Amino acid sequence: MSEHGKRDLVSIEDLSTAEILELFHHADEFRANLHAWSDLCRGAIMATLFFEPSTRTRLSFESSMLRLGGGVITAADEKSTSRAKGESLADTVRVVGGSYADILVVRHPEDGAARVAARYARVPVINGGDGAHEHPTQTLCDLYTLWQEKGRLEGLEVVLCGDLRYSRTIHSFCYALARFGANIVTMPYPGFELPEYVLQRLRRDYGVQAATASVGDLPGLAGSSNAAAYLTASKPHQLALFTKLTKVEVNRIDAIYMTRAQRERHEGQDTSNYPRLTRSTMGAAATKDARVMHPLPRVDEIDYDLDDDPRSIYFRQAELGVPMRMALMAYLLGKIQLRAERPKLLSVMPGLQSGIGLRCRNERCITNNEGVRYLQREFRLIDEVSPLVLSCCYCGREVEARFIGHSQSRIVYRHNAAEARRIKASNRVYFESEEQALAAGFTAHAS
Amino acid sequence: MSEHGKRDLVSIEDLSTAEILELFHHADEFRANLHAWSDLCRGAIMATLFFEPSTRTRLSFESSMLRLGGGVITAADEKSTSRAKGESLADTVRVVGGSYADILVVRHPEDGAARVAARYARVPVINGGDGAHEHPTQTLCDLYTLWQEKGRLEGLEVVLCGDLRYSRTIHSFCYALARFGANIVTMPYPGFELPEYVLQRLRRDYGVQAATASVGDLPGLAGSSNAAAYLTASKPHQLALFTKLTKVEVNRIDAIYMTRAQRERHEGQDTSNYPRLTRSTMGAAATKDARVMHPLPRVDEIDYDLDDDPRSIYFRQAELGVPMRMALMAYLLGKIQLRAERPKLLSVMPGLQSGIGLRCRNERCITNNEGVRYLQREFRLIDEVSPLVLSCCYCGREVEARFIGHSQSRIVYRHNAAEARRIKASNRVYFESEEQALAAGFTAHAS
Amino acid sequence: MSEHGKRDLVSIEDLSTAEILELFHHADEFRANLHAWSDLCRGAIMATLFFEPSTRTRLSFESSMLRLGGGVITAADEKSTSRAKGESLADTVRVVGGSYADILVVRHPEDGAARVAARYARVPVINGGDGAHEHPTQTLCDLYTLWQEKGRLEGLEVVLCGDLRYSRTIHSFCYALARFGANIVTMPYPGFELPEYVLQRLRRDYGVQAATASVGDLPGLAGSSNAAAYLTASKPHQLALFTKLTKVEVNRIDAIYMTRAQRERHEGQDTSNYPRLTRSTMGAAATKDARVMHPLPRVDEIDYDLDDDPRSIYFRQAELGVPMRMALMAYLLGKIQLRAERPKLLSVMPGLQSGIGLRCRNERCITNNEGVRYLQREFRLIDEVSPLVLSCCYCGREVEARFIGHSQSRIVYRHNAAEARRIKASNRVYFESEEQALAAGFTAHAS
Repeated sequence: MSEHGKRDLVSIEDLSTAEILELFHHADEFRANLHAWSDLCRGAIMATLFFEPSTRTRLSFESSMLRLGGGVITAADEKSTSRAKGESLADTVRVVGGSYADILVVRHPEDGAARVAARYARVPVINGGDGAHEHPTQTLCDLYTLWQEKGRLEGLEVVLCGDLRYSRTIHSFCYALARFGANIVTMPYPGFELPEYVLQRLRRDYGVQAATASVGDLPGLAGSSNAAAYLTASKPHQLALFTKLTKVEVNRIDAIYMTRAQRERHEGQDTSNYPRLTRSTMGAAATKDARVMHPLPRVDEIDYDLDDDPRSIYFRQAELGVPMRMALMAYLLGKIQLRAERPKLLSVMPGLQSGIGLRCRNERCITNNEGVRYLQREFRLIDEVSPLVLSCCYCGREVEARFIGHSQSRIVYRHNAAEARRIKASNRVYFESEEQALAAGFTAHAS
Repeated sequence: MSEHGKRDLVSIEDLSTAEILELFHHADEFRANLHAWSDLCRGAIMATLFFEPSTRTRLSFESSMLRLGGGVITAADEKSTSRAKGESLADTVRVVGGSYADILVVRHPEDGAARVAARYARVPVINGGDGAHEHPTQTLCDLYTLWQEKGRLEGLEVVLCGDLRYSRTIHSFCYALARFGANIVTMPYPGFELPEYVLQRLRRDYGVQAATASVGDLPGLAGSSNAAAYLTASKPHQLALFTKLTKVEVNRIDAIYMTRAQRERHEGQDTSNYPRLTRSTMGAAATKDARVMHPLPRVDEIDYDLDDDPRSIYFRQAELGVPMRMALMAYLLGKIQLRAERPKLLSVMPGLQSGIGLRCRNERCITNNEGVRYLQREFRLIDEVSPLVLSCCYCGREVEARFIGHSQSRIVYRHNAAEARRIKASNRVYFESEEQALAAGFTAHAS
Repeated sequence: MSEHGKRDLVSIEDLSTAEILELFHHADEFRANLHAWSDLCRGAIMATLFFEPSTRTRLSFESSMLRLGGGVITAADEKSTSRAKGESLADTVRVVGGSYADILVVRHPEDGAARVAARYARVPVINGGDGAHEHPTQTLCDLYTLWQEKGRLEGLEVVLCGDLRYSRTIHSFCYALARFGANIVTMPYPGFELPEYVLQRLRRDYGVQAATASVGDLPGLAGSSNAAAYLTASKPHQLALFTKLTKVEVNRIDAIYMTRAQRERHEGQDTSNYPRLTRSTMGAAATKDARVMHPLPRVDEIDYDLDDDPRSIYFRQAELGVPMRMALMAYLLGKIQLRAERPKLLSVMPGLQSGIGLRCRNERCITNNEGVRYLQREFRLIDEVSPLVLSCCYCGREVEARFIGHSQSRIVYRHNAAEARRIKASNRVYFESEEQALAAGFTAHAS
């Protein structure tokens, strides 16, 4: 979606698998001596635009830029300033990404906000977390740490534990693990399972299949609950052969990725039984070589007595964030080159850019909030089955086009009606429901 | 008012017209390659002291300093820290402008605060906006953008539109346009006309005369209202010949400067009919070559569909702010020299520095607020007619000295009384009213 | 307490007297030309982690680092971010002091927090003020200014005036003055005398003895109150010979150190009679060569008309803070070396590290607050009399071990009981009270 020949990192999908691996090797070089690079980006300015507070992420980016020799300007709590005066995100990034800064890092509470920033800014934009959508540099750092520790990602058994529902970190990490061929085991706190749209995408895009299993391997971890869902990559791990699978025993865990309860989103829900990693949990045979990961900040879900365990790598994750972000920014600023090819972007359906008809179903999507007064809705074609599956170009949420209208006759049909299929592609207008079509002034086909 | 041989920019009047034009040429050089100047101010530190939030202005200054190779320290929300402990602005700038920083940028909610900062700091001070007083770098950037676009300022027809009453940006811009010989057309939202003291100053200092006119040229802009006031420069444009002028038709508009409704100051007032620039407004013949300007942030007063119009230069204004501020700071730090002469400062009336008698009439002036416990009131002689016109050395508000007392006899007279005229200059004490004189212990002359 | 071979500055006691004097000479070099050092720490990054706002201290550190050529990352109001999510200080400094920064400056509302930061961070930590505990760089700057003005510290008569109870600045300054052999005269606002634990420590560690005296020397200063306490160094000034001393006349004051009323801690208390330095106070014969000092911000306790008095050096204190902090940071970062020896640390009692039994009596101590879920209590042996005097390794508060238990028999005795003295050192468990021992599961000795 770059309109200026620039590269952005809004979603982890904006980098190809080969690019990511190449960036890991660059990060290794930066890591070898963090102090040796202060001329690489001299003169470049990074702006951190944080519409939601996050000291850790912000400081990691700022440190990375300073270590590259660049300068930093910071708006750490944008809620209280220009936004309070009613300015749109699009205007803010056009100003700050004009002459002020050479690269932007944006954190925003609305899903899809980073894509808006990338569209309107003239300079590269890095998503520092947009709502419940993505937090791709966290994912890069997590993958890099795991890759460093284990020497590979393919075939690793990774357990995701805790709140899997509201953690954007987990969602991005899932897609990335699937992409690199790791097996994913989910151990959610009851009520905080992976959302259905994440499971769907794992299935469709990566051929990864869901199953349930017990977690007897980790005594004491999940309290009284021992329900857990397994997601296993169907290729190349062939686990999909077990299509009737309801229980799987894992004999070797390579990593346990723990997340905190996002308390701000658990209002009124009991988290007293939230899983907690302890020395005794980590005494289980299956965890002998497991690395303990956590995006931090932790609250109580990992005991302090695990901090000195050599398998605990959560502080290392934070530490490796700096060389990883140095590599990413040096790349986006054109200071290092990669041999790897860029990812192939999914094509945008002709006629759909106009957004006529469809509306993103995600109520937290920026197209339904901040952007409602200036953004055009756009969807990307995901699956050419019938009904078509499309995804919001901003927040990625999928929608099925169950009704198709004719842009001239203004008559709307069910997607599987013969009349619908006869409409020329250039005349098609897609809707999710009949009501939506009627509201847009179309007439229902009298069938 | 510099006491240290340093230059400050508190008011746009602190720079001569020739200096401003010379700075424009320097800004052009900086603009040609923003990345080529990172050695010019190496080692210099700028402090931004913002007692009111303003991300845009702050980031523009910070980016400019970084691009010059200097360092930046930031106090972005001073309300919550030293100020909360009761520290005066004078103390704050003496500390920060001691060894901490080599140049200060100050934003403060009280009129005249920047002059206080300039007085007490040992290093150059730039006014980043002080109450409703001035915001001179915004004015410099606006002038520079217009000069770049049109190649000149003299004789341009500039329409000022929207809230002209509470916008310090507009007031500074008015004086500067008048100084450079541009014609000013005002199109205020009803109730938000230019304040009388601004009109007075335009008349007296620049020979610019007010008139009213309709705005039929811009259909649909001003809603149901079509009242508008014209201000036209009497020299060199000779429009003052039309002294009975009540309506003027403008055939060519060079720029429309739009401002947002300062909602925080419009409480309880209906702004539903606030003017709004659209494609159709800009379709009027007179606006064919008009540039659309806005100090940003915009709210709703310019349609997003105008953003791609080549006449829209509001994002360019923000962009040019960086090279303009680079030129200004390099100058104040002594890193570039100008050939142009400095402005001649108006002399301060002997005996008036003591401030005896007079009190600034502006209730938002810092001498009536923060500074009341440590500032001496001072006035500058503006007009030697009778009664004398003086202006507050801090906020610039004018006051007429209608009563004159004798410092020895402690008797006070009307300014036009024969006795008043016989008092030696060194014995004169000026008052605005008899009450003020009586309150100061003077006796009214029994006439 | 450094576990990484690094040096921290948590307490002024972390620097030896010889090191401090040597740092003064380095500060002199930096001061001679603040702009000449921008290569000394190039590539180094300082992080300011402020869990309490303080613009002045923060900006002074940031300016110092920039003048040394390093970079700065800032978390100026940590309360609202990671902390709000429940992160511990230990975790925060492990992350930020991992790869993000090469040196940390920490300000925190809890006593002893800086020691926690120093323990957990891998890089040097400077205490920027921790609760009511210490603010050692303020002390360094105060000492340096006084040393510069007077050419020495030994034998100076220093009057401490105002709120001596809640000011950590005053407490640190007291210990340091005593260490350098200056005489301390206290002139507290009634009700705000030096706390007993400060007096005790002055007596024990520095042989400084308390006495009361009138302050007739400073007319008008203390309002209606003329009670004051003298603390005079017993060595080398021999004033301790006057052991019955109740009044002392001071003929020459070298410095008056004024402090503001910490209003946030004076709730409901009348401060209308708070001392205030004026021209007339400073007209007293004894103050002829006195320097007026203040840590700033001031409120009303020093008249503005004293600002131009050459004896007023409070702005100079702030100014010298930059070269002093430059010297300190260059030292901690290993960029300058000192010939002086490090201070000898008091040994930690064997068996006491475990903290069994004792609990810090200071309710504001971090071991009783933020750190309760992860810190082990530790005490340092201060005085080997009976009962033993120990001090909290974090906040320094002293505690007497009046009961001693046997770790095997689990019986507890009074410290002076014959049975207590027979317990082998390695089996001793110390308690402050019998209740504490019972609560820990010990049995009282049936005496």
